[in-house]
Amino acid sequence: MDFAYPEKVNELRTRVTAFMERAIYPNQQTYHEQIAVSGNPHHHAEIVDELKAQAKAEGLWNLFLPDKEYGMGLTNLEYAPLAEIMGRVSWASEVFNCAAPDTGNMEILAQFGTAEQKRQWLQPLLNGEIRSAFAMTEPDVASSDATNIQLTIERDGDSYVNYVLNGRKWWISGAARERCKIFIVMGKTDPHNPDRHHQQSMILVPRETPGVTIKRNLPVMGYVDNEGHCEVLFENVRVPASNLLGTEGSGFAIAQARLGPGRIHHCMRAIGGAQYALELMCQRAASRVAFGKRLIEQGVIQEWIAQSQLEIEQARLLTLKAAWIIDTQGKKAAQNEIAMIKIVAPQALTNVVNRAIQVFGAAGLSDDFPLASMWAHGRTLHIVDGPDEVHKRSLARSIIRQHTS
Amino acid sequence: MDFAYPEKVNELRTRVTAFMERAIYPNQQTYHEQIAVSGNPHHHAEIVDELKAQAKAEGLWNLFLPDKEYGMGLTNLEYAPLAEIMGRVSWASEVFNCAAPDTGNMEILAQFGTAEQKRQWLQPLLNGEIRSAFAMTEPDVASSDATNIQLTIERDGDSYVNYVLNGRKWWISGAARERCKIFIVMGKTDPHNPDRHHQQSMILVPRETPGVTIKRNLPVMGYVDNEGHCEVLFENVRVPASNLLGTEGSGFAIAQARLGPGRIHHCMRAIGGAQYALELMCQRAASRVAFGKRLIEQGVIQEWIAQSQLEIEQARLLTLKAAWIIDTQGKKAAQNEIAMIKIVAPQALTNVVNRAIQVFGAAGLSDDFPLASMWAHGRTLHIVDGPDEVHKRSLARSIIRQHTS
Amino acid sequence: MDFAYPEKVNELRTRVTAFMERAIYPNQQTYHEQIAVSGNPHHHAEIVDELKAQAKAEGLWNLFLPDKEYGMGLTNLEYAPLAEIMGRVSWASEVFNCAAPDTGNMEILAQFGTAEQKRQWLQPLLNGEIRSAFAMTEPDVASSDATNIQLTIERDGDSYVNYVLNGRKWWISGAARERCKIFIVMGKTDPHNPDRHHQQSMILVPRETPGVTIKRNLPVMGYVDNEGHCEVLFENVRVPASNLLGTEGSGFAIAQARLGPGRIHHCMRAIGGAQYALELMCQRAASRVAFGKRLIEQGVIQEWIAQSQLEIEQARLLTLKAAWIIDTQGKKAAQNEIAMIKIVAPQALTNVVNRAIQVFGAAGLSDDFPLASMWAHGRTLHIVDGPDEVHKRSLARSIIRQHTS
Amino acid sequence: MDFAYPEKVNELRTRVTAFMERAIYPNQQTYHEQIAVSGNPHHHAEIVDELKAQAKAEGLWNLFLPDKEYGMGLTNLEYAPLAEIMGRVSWASEVFNCAAPDTGNMEILAQFGTAEQKRQWLQPLLNGEIRSAFAMTEPDVASSDATNIQLTIERDGDSYVNYVLNGRKWWISGAARERCKIFIVMGKTDPHNPDRHHQQSMILVPRETPGVTIKRNLPVMGYVDNEGHCEVLFENVRVPASNLLGTEGSGFAIAQARLGPGRIHHCMRAIGGAQYALELMCQRAASRVAFGKRLIEQGVIQEWIAQSQLEIEQARLLTLKAAWIIDTQGKKAAQNEIAMIKIVAPQALTNVVNRAIQVFGAAGLSDDFPLASMWAHGRTLHIVDGPDEVHKRSLARSIIRQHTS
Repeated sequence: MDFAYPEKVNELRTRVTAFMERAIYPNQQTYHEQIAVSGNPHHHAEIVDELKAQAKAEGLWNLFLPDKEYGMGLTNLEYAPLAEIMGRVSWASEVFNCAAPDTGNMEILAQFGTAEQKRQWLQPLLNGEIRSAFAMTEPDVASSDATNIQLTIERDGDSYVNYVLNGRKWWISGAARERCKIFIVMGKTDPHNPDRHHQQSMILVPRETPGVTIKRNLPVMGYVDNEGHCEVLFENVRVPASNLLGTEGSGFAIAQARLGPGRIHHCMRAIGGAQYALELMCQRAASRVAFGKRLIEQGVIQEWIAQSQLEIEQARLLTLKAAWIIDTQGKKAAQNEIAMIKIVAPQALTNVVNRAIQVFGAAGLSDDFPLASMWAHGRTLHIVDGPDEVHKRSLARSIIRQHTS
Repeated sequence: MDFAYPEKVNELRTRVTAFMERAIYPNQQTYHEQIAVSGNPHHHAEIVDELKAQAKAEGLWNLFLPDKEYGMGLTNLEYAPLAEIMGRVSWASEVFNCAAPDTGNMEILAQFGTAEQKRQWLQPLLNGEIRSAFAMTEPDVASSDATNIQLTIERDGDSYVNYVLNGRKWWISGAARERCKIFIVMGKTDPHNPDRHHQQSMILVPRETPGVTIKRNLPVMGYVDNEGHCEVLFENVRVPASNLLGTEGSGFAIAQARLGPGRIHHCMRAIGGAQYALELMCQRAASRVAFGKRLIEQGVIQEWIAQSQLEIEQARLLTLKAAWIIDTQGKKAAQNEIAMIKIVAPQALTNVVNRAIQVFGAAGLSDDFPLASMWAHGRTLHIVDGPDEVHKRSLARSIIRQHTS
Repeated sequence: MDFAYPEKVNELRTRVTAFMERAIYPNQQTYHEQIAVSGNPHHHAEIVDELKAQAKAEGLWNLFLPDKEYGMGLTNLEYAPLAEIMGRVSWASEVFNCAAPDTGNMEILAQFGTAEQKRQWLQPLLNGEIRSAFAMTEPDVASSDATNIQLTIERDGDSYVNYVLNGRKWWISGAARERCKIFIVMGKTDPHNPDRHHQQSMILVPRETPGVTIKRNLPVMGYVDNEGHCEVLFENVRVPASNLLGTEGSGFAIAQARLGPGRIHHCMRAIGGAQYALELMCQRAASRVAFGKRLIEQGVIQEWIAQSQLEIEQARLLTLKAAWIIDTQGKKAAQNEIAMIKIVAPQALTNVVNRAIQVFGAAGLSDDFPLASMWAHGRTLHIVDGPDEVHKRSLARSIIRQHTS
Repeated sequence: MDFAYPEKVNELRTRVTAFMERAIYPNQQTYHEQIAVSGNPHHHAEIVDELKAQAKAEGLWNLFLPDKEYGMGLTNLEYAPLAEIMGRVSWASEVFNCAAPDTGNMEILAQFGTAEQKRQWLQPLLNGEIRSAFAMTEPDVASSDATNIQLTIERDGDSYVNYVLNGRKWWISGAARERCKIFIVMGKTDPHNPDRHHQQSMILVPRETPGVTIKRNLPVMGYVDNEGHCEVLFENVRVPASNLLGTEGSGFAIAQARLGPGRIHHCMRAIGGAQYALELMCQRAASRVAFGKRLIEQGVIQEWIAQSQLEIEQARLLTLKAAWIIDTQGKKAAQNEIAMIKIVAPQALTNVVNRAIQVFGAAGLSDDFPLASMWAHGRTLHIVDGPDEVHKRSLARSIIRQHTS
């Protein structure tokens, strides 16, 4: 048992931190201005491409990908502390080509894709040339229960040449981006299979395929996100059978495989956000006076700072442990921990940011500081990937089995 | 001791509820569409004027104003349950000419205004022809402590003809509206007065006065509110001495006077919002299935519904009691209760809405339902009028005095 | 709507408060010493009889009983504030002959008892000569669901002369007292009745009846209560048929009837306890110094005091409203409110006392102050009368029905 | 970074677990009966000596002591998981000679004691022949601030032969035990030293020294603990100068040194208790039915189980990390983590046990199960070693320094 980051990780943390300080923090205003000026909330800020080139040149690129052939070959545990640092600023991960949902999509393409699928989609994603989306959630059912999914993927006649998709998805993150070229779509190929976890398949659908309509973007807690969270209609969308990812009926299993490392990433990014908010809160509290003393000298503010530190540090350790279990014993062994961090990391983020907003006063509600948008983003994490309650339920059932058998 | 609303109030509740059902709920989409179509988030939706005429014709107008000469002459306790009903939809109060900050401004004009001030500003406000703003908060100091205020109101030379204002305000709600014609501005006429609660004065500043610059609107938790919350610069703004509201040095006292009834109003509106969210949550939970049963049959959802009911009903009773004390014993006697409801009503609102969002899932994050914007609004209530913590501090000090003397 | 106590109530509050100050607070130590000296934790402290005589002489007696023939004829709303004052000290209610479980037992005897039952049991209870117990909870089933009850009440042969009871009860409060002469026992006379709410009956069992064995007293969170909470065995206990309270099958209904006013009483007592703890907390915090300033000047302590005040005042208002509904519209109409106060009053008590303990430091854990035992008592209130969760469930189901029909 | 326990630790965990299962759990009733039968709550249960002999024979003895000469030479990180297992049953640690306050006392004797002090006191403690107490807290001051301490330790005249102690201590845990032979007493040798952290010294006082009076035992949340928490009077207590532990003025420093490992121990024991309560809660919930289904199938119970698991696992990881920092970087470097676990471990214990009690219903309040006494013990941990709030304050100040320099 050892709580020290290995040398290699510390060296990377230093480099990523230096990059953040040199290239990200000072460009936060530029980033938002470039989008504002464009008049299009989904505009790709020019500064991002500029910084991507720098990060790539410095070898800070595709850090997330455990596959040594395609990525940096870091374990989940080694990558986690880097994800935390990137997560301090909402748009930083893309600069390192480490942004969701591409990361998860690249992972399953690397793991389950055919050579042709890899050539056509994985490679440009790895190069940072295109972006992608993952289409799972549907508006008409409680999608937290994956067996509820309704989009159909049917063979086109008897020949096994094409599949036809029909259905409606929403909250398809990234779909509003111009560069988003490929959707990985979850649907049902075998809706009557008595084994409800083998009814689903995943299939690759290029964004420009006829029948795909991006109906609208959905704002999130007031924010129109740059990436966009879209409602997408699939009407008689025809794609070649070779676009199937993995085999028919393996959709649920691939979704599960995608979950583990993705969970580590977004939890560590959430923790990075919480940590950043805590630091901002301390700095603000040090600079403001009320009732004759600085906010940092007031008991309630101190209580908030202590409580924030407690939540962050505990969530961080648990997430690192989850990563370690995935690395050493596999995703299945980490099931409980993966559920646990889904609950605690967003909690830490929204709790800490909420306190920070209160310390900032009205300024914290505005966009003069990143807190309000961080909160909105954190709030979504309590719902996306399934609401917290679903994960608590799974966790409880597992704990009960363990202690009552 | 009697918990029944009097007959008069029940009759008004019936009428306001009927109006909401006939004219407000069915026009929610229209309202948002008219603003969206205009391309201007601060656009005055045409439907509002249409409905104002109806409300006025039906005598559902200026219900808030206890002054029998100018308003309906309801007590705070009588008006409170009506404010609750209007508060269910964010923009409904204006339809009844009962929207902040006009309500508070009309009250202090009625109470402290000269005949000329009443003629020029109170009357058109009562008619619903113009709107107003209240300029107190400043960006550079913790304004929760009113003695921190820095805007200066100086006599223009030795003659007592004009005042000159210099300073910067922000979070001036309503200032982005075209119809907003008058600002009531809080500043310091006597900054060196050893009695720190007599340094301040209030003064009327027409929005078009030279030197007044609306720098920008501030978004709130992601939302660009229709009313706008503006940063306003006052540079050598000259207004006649007759624009002073009350006497020099009475600014703090007028602000206090404005607080009590205004607090009742916005707390009851918050409770109305919470109540509406609870009803939406029940309806949604009744219509969705997960893991083989309807959400309303799941223990955690039931727990949320029960907890929401508890918070709402308790906050409602406390707010009604605060109104009753103001009516029967005066604002000063109600000081503790006014502080208490400042804390519990926003808490009820954000807690209940937050649970409702979780029940709605991703849909709750979007603007397809009013929940996300209700949450954002509720969040601001923990800060505006002073952060909750300031009110807890005052309350505690009062309680301590009571039990240790 | 009116939040003032009527004159009559204020006069009684003054008298009860004066009695507390003159006779109860100064005798707290005496009370505990008399029990300690006796060597028997269930000893009847002599001071209690002395004070009972005084209270009776002053007409502060049976204040709880709404029946004008037998009691004082106060409504629930009129009695509630008196119960609050008595509830400040754990043993004070008995002095006024207003202690549970006698109060509820007297109520149902007055309401459902035969003339003979009243003569034999109600009268001596009203006189304060004997005490009683209510035997409902059973060790082997979740008794929060009354249909689970297993004790059998069977006719003794075909003749309708005697009933025979068999079963085991526990948590029979008061059964350890020497003066406890009568048990009201809930059991099943008709266990196969398809209507599960008509299977139960209530029957009077004198404590000395052969077959009744008091197996042991159960400590509560470490405390051996003076009244005792006993496990009682009923083995072939024979009582005359005339001992049935009400009719066969009416047990559930009588239990419900007993619930409403009893709930008001113990919730108001809980609120009295919370209020007392808040006052003690303020006084202690005013007298202790840490880190260079008095505890009352420290932000976290102030936050606790404010939060305590909020919880107490809100629970108080809700309980008073529940009493008012019972008085004006009946127990059935008050069902939701009766569930709600079951949840909030114990919460206020344990929360406030817990904070007070923390302010007292180690002293608060000891019996030098009443806080530790108040907490233990408060903790039981989350379970007795059904765990909070059962009441939240009922409340939620009622709220859902209301908003989804 | 590695979250696996090393082989050596796993082997010891297996052995300690086996001992618990073979010798501790089956003897829980015996333990309590032997005390009950003796009529003396401070009676030393015979079973303990029996089991001590077994544990010693098996080499499961003094596992806590990092000193290889006197103890087992385990690091804090290696011992921590063993403390967790022992902590599942309140009296188990003593069986392994790993019980507080002896552990901390043995540590400082080993570290700061003279050869003679070690011979006379450390050796019999290591052998499990005698027990000890640590006298720090005082009734008249807020002892959470150590500079408040008032007991005086004065040189007896000019000669440097004896010290004379005068003062009053309370909450001296273990002092009620017959076998408790030695007190380590904290007092002031130099009360006017301007450096307030050099005013204190520690000194060894045999329990039988004239002038030492054990005034009384203090119950804790209703429980008379076997070990006793005593109020002790020191009146002109004379001890030889050679009884000083370390040097004059080093009392505060020794107290700090004692803190780190002791904190690890009692936090891990608290976590062990929480873990045990969680297991009991699962088992009980699996065996009880309410409203037609088993408690483990009810959403709220599942929510509690999940939440408990989250709190336990996070507190465990943080405590293990604190131990690791102490081992690898020293106590000073671990200051923040030592403060953090002081807060989270007791929280996990009282939260989880409180939920378990609720699941057990009334049975959970009684002593038929260990939950009630576990809660009472857990509650004290929020106060002993300084209330949580003091540690939050220190933590916050440290975090603020870190982010604002």
